[in-house]
Order: sequence, then structure tokens, then C-alpha cells
Amino acid sequence: MPGIDKLPLEETLEDSPQTRSLLGVFEEDTAATSSYFSQLFKAMQRIYDAQNELSAATHLTSRLLKDYEKQRFPLGGDDEVMSSTLQQFAKVIDELSSCHAVLSTQLADAMMFPITQFQERDLREIVILKEVFQISSDDHDTAVNRYSRLSKRKENEKVKNEVMEDVYTSRKKQHETIMHYFASLNMLQYKKKIALLEPLLGYMQAQISFFKLGSENLTQQWEEFLTNIGTSVQKNIKKNYKITKT
Amino acid sequence: MPGIDKLPLEETLEDSPQTRSLLGVFEEDTAATSSYFSQLFKAMQRIYDAQNELSAATHLTSRLLKDYEKQRFPLGGDDEVMSSTLQQFAKVIDELSSCHAVLSTQLADAMMFPITQFQERDLREIVILKEVFQISSDDHDTAVNRYSRLSKRKENEKVKNEVMEDVYTSRKKQHETIMHYFASLNMLQYKKKIALLEPLLGYMQAQISFFKLGSENLTQQWEEFLTNIGTSVQKNIKKNYKITKT
Repeated sequence: MPGIDKLPLEETLEDSPQTRSLLGVFEEDTAATSSYFSQLFKAMQRIYDAQNELSAATHLTSRLLKDYEKQRFPLGGDDEVMSSTLQQFAKVIDELSSCHAVLSTQLADAMMFPITQFQERDLREIVILKEVFQISSDDHDTAVNRYSRLSKRKENEKVKNEVMEDVYTSRKKQHETIMHYFASLNMLQYKKKIALLEPLLGYMQAQISFFKLGSENLTQQWEEFLTNIGTSVQKNIKKNYKITKT
Repeated sequence: MPGIDKLPLEETLEDSPQTRSLLGVFEEDTAATSSYFSQLFKAMQRIYDAQNELSAATHLTSRLLKDYEKQRFPLGGDDEVMSSTLQQFAKVIDELSSCHAVLSTQLADAMMFPITQFQERDLREIVILKEVFQISSDDHDTAVNRYSRLSKRKENEKVKNEVMEDVYTSRKKQHETIMHYFASLNMLQYKKKIALLEPLLGYMQAQISFFKLGSENLTQQWEEFLTNIGTSVQKNIKKNYKITKT
């Protein structure tokens, strides 16, 4: 339905079938938005959980390598070259796990926080307002019903006044809640765009920082280290291969 | 125990208490190695699983964004700016998920494959050889026992020859299996170093490629894209804020 982007607050008092039908469209749109966000939220939660797990597993690997020299190997305990090589690996892998931890924190703040807020605050507000609106409509209906039954009987003035007062206040209450509900539904049309873009921006910026951190600070020193190790491992493999062959 | 790095194959025939005690040291070292590798294997498996999950979740997020325009939102279906922005996000996040997928593959080949091979082939071989050695020792003991009981009784020549033949073949078999077992235990001392360094090298090289791929090909175009989006989102937030205030 192109062209419609607002529920008319000025028509809430009239409560016409047209307005009710338009409300239906907004409610349908909100349900679709809610369902779409729920899927996106789950996907982002998976990214965030996996990132945390990656960070933790990387840290654990680094710690295991650090602990190598504390292992009680009855043989080869004097292998200092091996020990120091593993210490170096432990150090660079620990640096990498720090980069991962920074990424995790950024994802928590810039991706999970805004999408969670939208889920738990904005979309939840709509659900609650719908309920409140429903209750106030029911109350109004009850009051009107009581009033219509009243006119057929002979009642005293006090009761009559009470019932009319009730119709008036419940009508006022219903009007207030429908205005609040409409305003929130209108606002959601703006909020949902921001709620989509904000976590995505947060995600991308966190990724860019991660790549920058990784490539600027770490890769050059890693590469030098790896070239040295690589050569010594290849020598070892060749030596090993010769032993196997003989 | 510095200085000892080989079980003497030439002493396997003698099977002295000294050799048996040295075998004990090698077996203890193998058990310690096995336990250490088991921990490292689990940590690396966690890294690999988390990386796969990250890759899958990133791909899913990209797909959800791609599917945005297929969603049946009753309102705002004509919002082309939003649709095309999300398409661009979907594209860059998909590129990122490809980088993650490449990293996953490299981790599978260069980290998980060698450490799994060591676990399932080399360490397992030792376990099997120990069992085979145990069986052949038991067989030999049985044959010797039978022979020692034989000499006290009067047996016919045929049985005597049979028993002696049995002692001879079981002794030969036992000698073969202990040589094989010793050779494998010696070889493990070399293999375990390679088995430690190879997956670590694979891991680091995969990470370096990942950072290179990410920073060289992707971040510049991402940054341009994000600057544009960022400005438009900030405008939207301000607009949104003004609406909320009025």
C-alpha cells in the first residue's frame, strides 16, 4: 500500500470503520516486521555467540601452548627450542584472541544492544499498548451496554449519573489509549528502519576495526616469525622422512 | 630425563630389566603426550567449529537481508532506498562470509587434518602395538610354561618337538613385535614435534590469509559504503528524534 505511512491521530475520536481497517494494515505490517526482526535477531545472536566461542577457544589454545613447558613429559623436557617456539606461538595466538575479544565487545555494544532494544522495548511496547487498548475498548463497551439497558428501566438519578460518568471516562480512556497506540505504530515505521541499519552498521564497523587491528599490528610480526618456524619445521619433516625411509 | 631419546632396538632380544624400565619411561611420555594432544585437539576443534558456525551465521544474515525485499510488508513496500541499502549490506556481508568460508576450509586442511592424523593414526598405532606386544608376550609365556612342565614328565619325542617349536616361534614373534613397538615409540618422539608445529603453522597461515583477504579486498569498499550509509542513518536518527520530541 504505497503512500500510506501514518495512522491519522485526528480520526481516533471518530473510530470509523476506515480507521479500523487502516489500523489492521498497520498491525499486519507490525506483525511482519516483528517476525522479520525475530529471524534477524537470531542470526545476529548466532554470529555473536560464535564470535564469543571463537574468542574463548583461541584463548584456550594459547593457554595450552603456554602450559606446554609445565607439562611433565618424562622425555624431551630439556627441549628448549621447542618450548620457546611454543611460547612464541602462545603469544601471537593470545594477541589474536585479544583482537577477537575486542570484536566481541564491539558486536555486543554496536550490534546486539540496538537490535535487542528494538525487540524488547519498541516491539514489546506495541504488544502492551495493543492489550491496553483492548482492555479500554472492552471497558467502554461494557459502560455503553449498561447505559443502553438503563434507558428502558426507571432508575434513580444517582445511578443514571454514575453510568453516564462511566461512559464518559471509559470513552476518554479509550481515546487516550488508541491515540497512544496509533502514535507508537506510526513511530515504529521510522524506528524499524533505524533498527535495521544501526546493528548492521555496528557489525560492519566492528569487522573493519578487527581487520585493521589484525593486519596493521599483527600480520607483519607473525609473518617473520612464521618464516623462521616454517623453515625449521620443513627441515624436521625432511629429517623425519629420511628416518622413516631408512 | 635428558639425553635419552631412543629405545635401543639392539637390546630387544635380551629383554633386560633396564630395557623394560626404559620402556616404562617411553610409555609414560607417550601417555603424557597423548593427554596433552587430546586437550589441544579439543581446543582446535572448538576453534574450527566456532569458525564454521560464524561462517554459517554470517551467511544466514546476508541471506536474510537479501530476502528483505521479498518480505510482504503491507506498508513501506515501495521504500526503494531501504531495499537497495539492505542489498548492499547483504552483498558485503556475503563477501565477508566467503572470507570466513575460505578460512574454515584452510583450518580444516592445515590445522584439523594434521592433528587428527596424529591422534587417529600415530597415537592409535602405539596403543595397538602395545596390545599386540602384550598378546605375543603372553603367548611366549604360555609356551615357556608348557616347556618347563614338559621336562619333568616323560613325553614322547613328537610332543617335545612340538612344544620346543612353539617356544621358538612365539619367542620370534615376541621379538618382532617388541622391535616394531620400540621403533614406533622412538618415531613418536620426532613425530610429536611436527604434530604440534604443523597445525599451529596451518592455523597462523590461515589467519594471515584471512586478514589479508579482508583488509586488501574488502575494507576500502566497505568504508566508502559505510560513510554514505552512516550519514543517512544519522540524518534519520535526528529526524526521528525531532519527531519523538514534537
